[in-house]
Amino acid sequence: MEANSWLWRCPRCGGPLDIVIDGLRLTLSERRGLWRFASAIPAKPLVSLGEGSTPLVEAKFLGDNVYLKLEYLNPTGSFKDRGSAVAVSKALEFGVKAVVEDSSGNTGISISAYASAAGIRARIYVPKDAPEGKKSLIRALGADLVEAPTRADAYRMAVESVGENEVYIGHLWNPWFLQGTKTLAYELLDQMGHAPDAVIVPVASGTLLLGLYIGFGELLSMGLIKRIPKLFAVQAQGYARLYEELHGTYKAEPTKIADALRVSDPPRLSQMVNAVKSSNGDAVLVTDDEIVRAWRQALKGGFIIEPSSATVISAFWKLIDNKQISKDDEVVLILTGSGLKYIDIIGKYIVENIPR
Amino acid sequence: MEANSWLWRCPRCGGPLDIVIDGLRLTLSERRGLWRFASAIPAKPLVSLGEGSTPLVEAKFLGDNVYLKLEYLNPTGSFKDRGSAVAVSKALEFGVKAVVEDSSGNTGISISAYASAAGIRARIYVPKDAPEGKKSLIRALGADLVEAPTRADAYRMAVESVGENEVYIGHLWNPWFLQGTKTLAYELLDQMGHAPDAVIVPVASGTLLLGLYIGFGELLSMGLIKRIPKLFAVQAQGYARLYEELHGTYKAEPTKIADALRVSDPPRLSQMVNAVKSSNGDAVLVTDDEIVRAWRQALKGGFIIEPSSATVISAFWKLIDNKQISKDDEVVLILTGSGLKYIDIIGKYIVENIPR
Repeated sequence: MEANSWLWRCPRCGGPLDIVIDGLRLTLSERRGLWRFASAIPAKPLVSLGEGSTPLVEAKFLGDNVYLKLEYLNPTGSFKDRGSAVAVSKALEFGVKAVVEDSSGNTGISISAYASAAGIRARIYVPKDAPEGKKSLIRALGADLVEAPTRADAYRMAVESVGENEVYIGHLWNPWFLQGTKTLAYELLDQMGHAPDAVIVPVASGTLLLGLYIGFGELLSMGLIKRIPKLFAVQAQGYARLYEELHGTYKAEPTKIADALRVSDPPRLSQMVNAVKSSNGDAVLVTDDEIVRAWRQALKGGFIIEPSSATVISAFWKLIDNKQISKDDEVVLILTGSGLKYIDIIGKYIVENIPR
Repeated sequence: MEANSWLWRCPRCGGPLDIVIDGLRLTLSERRGLWRFASAIPAKPLVSLGEGSTPLVEAKFLGDNVYLKLEYLNPTGSFKDRGSAVAVSKALEFGVKAVVEDSSGNTGISISAYASAAGIRARIYVPKDAPEGKKSLIRALGADLVEAPTRADAYRMAVESVGENEVYIGHLWNPWFLQGTKTLAYELLDQMGHAPDAVIVPVASGTLLLGLYIGFGELLSMGLIKRIPKLFAVQAQGYARLYEELHGTYKAEPTKIADALRVSDPPRLSQMVNAVKSSNGDAVLVTDDEIVRAWRQALKGGFIIEPSSATVISAFWKLIDNKQISKDDEVVLILTGSGLKYIDIIGKYIVENIPR
């Protein structure tokens, strides 16, 4: 394989590409983490920073049969590390010299770390108003950081910049990224011994939702589970394309707090609609007030997550209230990103409301 | 058991207390994490946030046979969670209403999270110049935060404040805290199949060094390993009591960057000397310049650690240089704390030195 045979979208229709594995069979390896499922991953395990095998813990403060999957304890603090481990391993297989990405947040950090560990360059395009701390971290992880006027410019500039022996690894499009995030479905089955009734995930570009749908779909096709769990996708104010597809237009101020969920135009939108509908799940919209309330509750339970991850707790409460989830259902909430990146804003949003 | 039978130091000599387990036998449980070794822990597993089972990864950038133990991927971002899980479980067994601690850093955060998860109060005394972000996080985790003029005042005020049904859980003294950190030795054996030749750890109050010494000592007594690995304890400028005991007085500016290592007067100093000496290890002193260099290298490898953890990399280079460790030795470096708490200073220390 060579870098110039790397495709990041369909050359004919311009749409995203998918990977279908013929004759899939699962053999668990003795390895810890994501590569325990290497037999189901169409990439060589060339780079690892310890991703996967994250804790699954009971959430007594939410009720019985409710579990939290602590994806924020992945190496760079988010579930994106599953996608990066596989996508960067694949880039290495293609013999690329550099990967190019546009992201100011968790994915930029994750891709930078994995590329650096793999010994290839990363060039990350970010909007110039991205938080200084995250920009510094991306550079400290060894990536070349390029600032763009806006988020949309970052995407355009990234794609246009790709040179010889370089590839656009963009996670919104990358099919191997989904082959990494799908391992979360495999891992839940491995940890629980069966599939849960429902899984609640935050959704922006859909890499986690689609990863779970692909993973559970494969497990179903191998006869290892009986049905795909209901997938509930949570979105925030102003970035609710999936929610709007299912429930009609929703007008509101864009979220100020769930920054990891700010994706305006996810290229895999129709796939996201299908994943939610055909699993008998739903899309849920949560407001910033609801997110802050859930974030406070999570922190009080000892779970140091980012605001975007707290959305799943708000959604859980809503789904219980409107009886889309019953108290007997076994439910897994995916906590996607670390709150340690946010300790500078905890004072403003949480502590001022705690009586001294 | 009741709260008023809780001892935090010897009522006769005022020294720290130790726990010796009669007839110790190890049976591995099926659980993930620290409680996999429950048979060797003298506490009921009453509270867990997913601590332990952290990744052990190869560190190719340091050489062959060198492994990094990613303790910063514990639930609150540091190895302290092992100690907190056991110490807070024990407090619950004693039926206490509140635990009292003095710490402005990782331990304050960890104890707050575990106490909150256990449904008991935590009261944390911190020096008033502690970073605002960490103070906010401690309060957001549900603890009562009390500011003291200095670090020494925080200790004194904490101890004096203990009321009815409350206990002083102070990690510098607490013997159950060490019963938690000792599980790191068990976990290394479990992951590697044998004990490494050497382990390098950052040292402040010695909770990790002593935990390893206790753990490996128990494994040796059960015949599960052949010898205790050489334990190398790394200290920073200005807080080098252990180093000075072995190598004589060292005068230097106190460290500005390794804030987690700032302990002036560790009550278990003589035990620390013994752990290093009788394992044929040593104490190593590293300067702030050396720490920054190592921190940069760790970040470039994709490991988002705090500066205090980077000390072990500096020490590794020194020990190779002066032949206290050979290139054939199997060495484990413990990366103790998360760098995500430090993204606001990465710009200053790391990025300014990267050529644009």
